[in-house]
Parts: sequence; structure tokens; C-alpha cells
Amino acid sequence: MSGRTLRAYEEFLGRIRELHHLHSAVAMLNWDQQTYMPSKAAPLRAGQLEALAGVIHERTTAPRLLALLDELTAAGEELDDGGRIDVRETRRVVERTRRVPRELVQEISRTQPLAQQHWLAAREQADFALFAPWLEKMVALKRRVAEALGYEQTPYDPLLDEYEPGATAAEVDRVLTALRPRLVAMTRAIADSSLEPRRELLERSFPLDGQQAFSAWLLRQMGYDFTAGRLDVAPHPFTIGNLWDVRITTRYRADRITQSIFATLHEGGHALYEQGFDPAHLGTPRASAASLGIHESQSRMWENLVGRSLAFWEFAFPFLQAFFPDQTRDVTLEDWYPAINDVRPTCIRVEADEVTYNLHIILRFELERALIEGRLPVADLPGAWNEGLRELLGVEPPDDRQGVLQDIHWAMGLFGYFPTYALGNLYAAQLFETATREVPDLMGRLTRGDLLSLKSWANERIHRPGQEHRPVDLIRGVTGEEPSVEHLISHLRRKYSPLYGGWA
Amino acid sequence: MSGRTLRAYEEFLGRIRELHHLHSAVAMLNWDQQTYMPSKAAPLRAGQLEALAGVIHERTTAPRLLALLDELTAAGEELDDGGRIDVRETRRVVERTRRVPRELVQEISRTQPLAQQHWLAAREQADFALFAPWLEKMVALKRRVAEALGYEQTPYDPLLDEYEPGATAAEVDRVLTALRPRLVAMTRAIADSSLEPRRELLERSFPLDGQQAFSAWLLRQMGYDFTAGRLDVAPHPFTIGNLWDVRITTRYRADRITQSIFATLHEGGHALYEQGFDPAHLGTPRASAASLGIHESQSRMWENLVGRSLAFWEFAFPFLQAFFPDQTRDVTLEDWYPAINDVRPTCIRVEADEVTYNLHIILRFELERALIEGRLPVADLPGAWNEGLRELLGVEPPDDRQGVLQDIHWAMGLFGYFPTYALGNLYAAQLFETATREVPDLMGRLTRGDLLSLKSWANERIHRPGQEHRPVDLIRGVTGEEPSVEHLISHLRRKYSPLYGGWA
Repeated sequence: MSGRTLRAYEEFLGRIRELHHLHSAVAMLNWDQQTYMPSKAAPLRAGQLEALAGVIHERTTAPRLLALLDELTAAGEELDDGGRIDVRETRRVVERTRRVPRELVQEISRTQPLAQQHWLAAREQADFALFAPWLEKMVALKRRVAEALGYEQTPYDPLLDEYEPGATAAEVDRVLTALRPRLVAMTRAIADSSLEPRRELLERSFPLDGQQAFSAWLLRQMGYDFTAGRLDVAPHPFTIGNLWDVRITTRYRADRITQSIFATLHEGGHALYEQGFDPAHLGTPRASAASLGIHESQSRMWENLVGRSLAFWEFAFPFLQAFFPDQTRDVTLEDWYPAINDVRPTCIRVEADEVTYNLHIILRFELERALIEGRLPVADLPGAWNEGLRELLGVEPPDDRQGVLQDIHWAMGLFGYFPTYALGNLYAAQLFETATREVPDLMGRLTRGDLLSLKSWANERIHRPGQEHRPVDLIRGVTGEEPSVEHLISHLRRKYSPLYGGWA
Repeated sequence: MSGRTLRAYEEFLGRIRELHHLHSAVAMLNWDQQTYMPSKAAPLRAGQLEALAGVIHERTTAPRLLALLDELTAAGEELDDGGRIDVRETRRVVERTRRVPRELVQEISRTQPLAQQHWLAAREQADFALFAPWLEKMVALKRRVAEALGYEQTPYDPLLDEYEPGATAAEVDRVLTALRPRLVAMTRAIADSSLEPRRELLERSFPLDGQQAFSAWLLRQMGYDFTAGRLDVAPHPFTIGNLWDVRITTRYRADRITQSIFATLHEGGHALYEQGFDPAHLGTPRASAASLGIHESQSRMWENLVGRSLAFWEFAFPFLQAFFPDQTRDVTLEDWYPAINDVRPTCIRVEADEVTYNLHIILRFELERALIEGRLPVADLPGAWNEGLRELLGVEPPDDRQGVLQDIHWAMGLFGYFPTYALGNLYAAQLFETATREVPDLMGRLTRGDLLSLKSWANERIHRPGQEHRPVDLIRGVTGEEPSVEHLISHLRRKYSPLYGGWA
């Protein structure tokens, strides 16, 4: 590397690390807002976040940063592979940011809290009409973002690309279209079975401090580093932060023990990803997640592939009994395992099981794509929702609160976000299948409580590369195959066929 | 106001509000660092704080801000009183910041953690020599700051001025010189008395959760708004934040109930100040504290003038007994009141009582001034400390850990900070005397548990003006007199003479 290129690269690194520190300060303020912030502080926090957003936008679009990117791109082979990744991924974000006018970003920021407020009111009163004008506004704004970013096939593509670099609506559609009939058939077959899990045992009263201790125990088993993170409570569980400060939140409800267990395993999976980067690359794309879909694959792997497996509970169930002797005295693993794998079509996405979950995503993907493409007027959305749900799951929401108003995403302007949940489920199954090939006796290890072997495998194969590969390339590189629905389908088949009888 | 001036003022307001939001984001990160941050996050937090310090410095010294200040200063009477205050106080900070070279600020920032680390090691090993080179470096750096800021009489003045605008070493010296012999005499007279408070009752085991509940109860009585703040635990209690998000920390030790009570009252006093500004002026000097000395007057007023008074405990003692029935069954108010007002010369400032506390400050003021003025070599500091303490208090520290190494301030580069504690004590007594004149039957109100009358008085007379007046002018305006030591002396005399016998 020439002295000139080296100096440019170091200046570039200084700038992206400064940006990273500003982003992580924002993450910290967001964490606080959801956990400990006093209620009256909301307007002050909004002011802090707006000020920081302004600084971040200014620095991301700084002409000097673009000039450095140009110089480093021109330097070509002078940079090593890592340097080229840093430049490639930073350019991606810089170009996206430069394309969207600052005024449009600010208008979206101002609209978000109002849209959310009206969404909340609409949901409380189960009255979609209260939210409709705000949803229309948000769709129009995001459509303007899509136009500013540019696209070849559909304005949905550049929105999706923000969360899943390189993904397209056509590709997502192909995958979900393949998935759809098979999940529908599987859901019907399970509904026809006569198995009735002992659901009541999940609704017994499990004291919150015990749930908290059990959640911490689960995270310790997974290898989550509590000296580089924390576990707190938030109304909607999330994980935030990077490398040395990765904070998890979960929620506890006495009569819903599974809520905390699976939220903790899910968030723990996200957290292992963020703790798993190479500290040498702090503040660069090489210590950042490849995509939301890959992120979700890590949370779903721990929540579903591990956390809802018989192998895992052969290890964990005696501990659960030790934490909650009174609640589990008359319960056996043979009761527990079917109960936590109860498959039933319902109206609510966040309560859905492993089989029906992706059908909820298919519904949202199709509707939000039609909204953004202008094929579905907002006024027709509730009807389309209910019709779609009936076709997919055979259920009908009693009102819009439990239907089209259940998720906050659209009120926040998150279009193109839902598909990453489905991709995460598919990637999780495909990656876990590779892990079972590459980690000797993986299921036996889980049974013996060795969760760290899986963590180490994921650290090495998925976490440490950061953004070295685009998501699809990462999946191909790790699993040796194109992304496919077959792994999820065969996992579900293998698991639920013996549980619910011989429909495989 | 002309359209041009109005536009300039609005742009100016936008800029100082943005700066306020960035400063308050930093405050939030500092709070988190002392309360909930995981240990491994320290380097990441340092990076976040450095990035934000860079942004704040850049914006504080922006040529455009200075140009606006010039334009608004030139507009003179066109601005209303409030606008002129905003301009005057912002100019003060901008000019201070512009005078100190960025490289010097950065060198201090880099030196601070290292100096603190060596101070900690020196303190642990009671070996001043480990800290001496770092203290020398810090003194030299702060001396360079003083030179950059400029001064007429002593380089100590511009350092003091940062915390107490307008104060000078000569003025502080005059006040402390007047205080010194009277406190020394009072301390001796008390030492000669035969009163022996029942100290053991403060060392009984008071459960931490009860202490926490009692601390929250105390804050509620004072009128602290928990919806605009929180109470948490930190190793060194502090209060941070402004208006809608003012967070208090305290500490609990089972065998030291007074530690949490008086730390909470003290921090509660700081918090009432910060919650007491006019929200219309958020982000401007009119919603900021006048000085550290005035801030400390508010904490000391609640800690000492209220919190160690017989009137207050006539109200609060039965509640203390209700919170801690087992620990207080054999205790009466007649035991409690002398025990919490036990006056004894000791080596440790933070454990000092109302009478001896300022003698600890006098020692520090004289020594740090001599260090900055180059009259005292760092190598001679421990000897000068021990000699000074002997003269002031008649005690000798067993080692440097309990002597010159006890406070973190100098390791952080805080020279000119200690005097604000003494000024706070003096102002507290003077202000409280005015409050007793202006709030009808104030002591009777305290006895009946009406603490809100005092809070309202302080809100109106001291808090709401923000930085409308410089500290000395504020004291003069509220009390109708020049700042004076007489009020503190007469308070101590009135209080301790009956307690310790007829030496008044």
C-alpha cells in the first residue's frame, strides 16, 4: 500500500469509527428509552436523538468521506481484502444516505411518532380509520424514499435492500411462494390430529424473580458474556449494542412462562451474534451484522432449532424443575415438550408457533408490497388482511386490533422489514443443518448441556466474518448450497410428524 | 426586534439547543457508566464520549455561532432581557472554549483516565509516589489551560471561574480566612464538651431495601418528581440531568444508615434545582444552574439546614421508626438528633460533619492554589497536607490513603472545584436564613412535614432564574446582603451551642 493510500485508509477508518461511536451512543439512548427512562423525559430524548441524527447524517454525507471512498476504490488491489470490504460496505450506506434528501428523512422522523400515536389509538379502539390517513402518509413517504434510491423492478426493492442487502421482491416472492402451500398443508394436517398438549401447565403462576433467574441461567448456558452486556425488562423484547456492550431485554408474565423463556433465547441468539465479532474490527463493517435476515437466523436458531428441541430440554428440563419445583412437580418432559410445541392457527404473529409463523409473514409481505407498488389502496387493507389470513390460516380476526393493527412496523415506516423474519427462519434451518454435519454429535451435545460447541461454530462460521459476505453469499459459503426452503420444511416435518401423528 | 435580529436569534437558539441536547446525551452516557454499564464496555464508552466531545467542541467553536453572538450583541436593546442573558452566558462558554487549544483539551482527556488509574493504585497502596508524576502532569496541563484563558492576578482564577463565574482566588481567600479561626475555635470547644452521642445506633444493621424505600420516601417529601427522574445506586452518589430527566444516585451500606439518608437529601437538593427551571427555556442558559457554588447551596440546604435539623426530624423520625421498627425500638428522637450531629475532627472530608467540613476545603483550596501558582512542588504536597490538617483539625492521617490521596478531584484535573463546596455551605446558610424570614413559620412547617413550602420558595427565588444572575448577584438579590460567613457561623452557633454545652 502506498503511503498516500495508507493515509487515506487511516483517515477513512477514523471517520467510520467516529460514526460507529455516534451510532452506538444512539443505541444506548434507545435502550434507556425502553428500559429506565422516566416518562416525562420523552421530549428531551427526542431532542437528543434528533441532534445526533443530524450529526450522523452530516458526517455520513460529508464530501470528504465520499472523496476518501473514491480514492480508496481507485486504489483497488492496493487495499487488502478487509480494507476493500470496509470500503464496499461503507460506500453502500453513504450512497443510500446521500440519495435520500435530508428534508424527506426529517419529514419521516417527524411523522413517525405521530403515526405511532395514531396507530396506538386506532389499536386501542380497534378502529382502523383512525390510523388510515397516517398509514397513507407513511406509504407515500416511503415510496418517495424508494424513488430517491432508484430501482429496476419495483419500488419495494430499494426498501427491502436496506435491511437485506441484495435481496429483491422477486426473490423473496419465489421463496415464499414455494413455502406457502407446504406450510398451509402442514398446518391443516396438524389441526386434524388428535394430540392435545397439556397447555394449562404453561399458564401456571411462575414467580417473576424465578423467571428472571432462569432467563439469566439460559443466557449463561448459551455463552452470553454478562460482563459485556446486561439483561433487563422491556415491554417489547429487543437486543441492542455491539461487541463489548450488547444489552438484552426480555419480559416476564407470571402466567406465561414460555414468553420469557423464548424471548430470552431469541434475544440471546441476537446477542451472541453482536458479541461474536472480531474486536480488532470494532467500528467497521467487518464487525457488523451481514443483514437483518442473518441476524434473525441467529435468534431463531436458538429460539426454535435449539430452544424448542427435545435434545435441549432433556438437558434443561431438570433445571427448570429445580428453579420451579412447585409449578413442575407433576410435569414430565413428555408433557413439557409437546406443550411448548403446540401448533395452532391464530391471528397474532408474535404468538405464532414455528409452523404457522411464516404464513403471517407471507400475508404481510404481499400486502406491504402491494401498498408500496400502489396496487392496494389503504382503505382496502383491512379487508385484504382478513381475506388473506382466512386463506392462509383459516382464521378470522375478531376485530382490527387483532388483525391489521397488531404490528407497529408500518406505523414506524418499516416496509421491507417483515420478510427478514421469514428469511431468518429459512436461514436458521439451513445453517443448523450444516452445524449438525460439522459439529460432531451436535444433538448429543445439546442433550448434555454443551451449548458452547454450537456457539463456537456460529462464532467462527457466521459471526466473525461480519459483512465480509453479502447475506446470500454467506449462506452459500457456509452451507454449500443456495438458500432454500427445503431445510425448514424437512426440519418441521421431522419434528412435528412424530408429535402429531403419521401425516408426514 | 428587527426581522434580521429575530432570525439571527432563532438560529442562535437552534444552535444552543442542539448543543444542549448533545451535552445531555453525554450526561446520559455518564449516568449509565456509573450505574448499569457492563464492565467490558469501558473502551467503547470512552470512544462514544470522545466522539461526542469532538462534535460538541466543533459546534461550540463554530465560526457561525460566534458571528451570531456578535450580531446579537450588536443588536443591544433590540433583544429582551432574556435574550441578552442567553447571549451573555453563551458567549462566556464559547470564548472559554475557543481560547483553549483543541490539542490541549484532548491531551487532558487522554491523561485523565491514566491519572485516575495511577491515583487509584497509589491510594490502594498508600503510596503517593505512584501518583506524583501524574499529578505533576495534570498541574502542568491545567496551568497551560489557565495561561490560554488568561488572568490578571493568578492562574488559579480562570480555573475557578469555570465552576464559579466571576469568583476569584482573592475573594475566596478572604472568605475562607474569615471562616477559618472561627471554625477551628468551634471545633475545639465541641471537642472539649462532655457530650457523647449514642453513635452505635447509626451502626446497627438497616436492611438495604428498607433504606432504599426510605430514600424514595424522603425524595417524595421534598417534592422530587419521580416521573422526571429516577433513584439508582452508584459508588459515589451524584445527580445528573436537567428539567425532565434528572437522575439521582445514592449508596446503601447496612451499618451506615446515615450514609444513604444524607446522600439522598444532598442529591435531592441538587435534583430540585435541575427540575426547577422554566421548561420554556429548555436548552438555554436560563434553564441552567448559576454555578457549582449555587448548586451546592441547594444540596447543602436540604442535607444540613433541613436534614440535620431538629424540626425536620420531629416530623421524619416517626417515619424512620415505621420503616425500621426493629432497629429503632429503643431509640428516641433525643438519641437520634445528637447522633446525626456528632461533631468530631477526622481525616476524611466526605465523612466530615457540618462544623469541620469547611476546614477540609480550606486545606484543599490553599494547597491546590499553591500547586497551580507553582509555589508548592508536588513532592512536598503530602507533607504540606499533613501539616495543614494538624493545624486546622489537630489530627494526622495514618497514611496518604487517608490523607492527600483521599479525593479523586486532582486526578481528574479539577482544580478550582473544591472552593465551590465551601461557597455552597455559606450560601446555603445565608439563603436558608432568608427563607426563614420569607416563608411564614418555616421551621413549624418542617416540623409538620411541609417541605414543599421551602421547595416552592427555592424554585421561585433561586431555581427559575437560571443564569439570569451571576452567583454573587443572585445571593445579593435574594438575601439583600453581600455573601458573608456570618450566617453559617450563627447557624452553627445556634445549633451546636445547646447541643454541646454553653460555649457560645
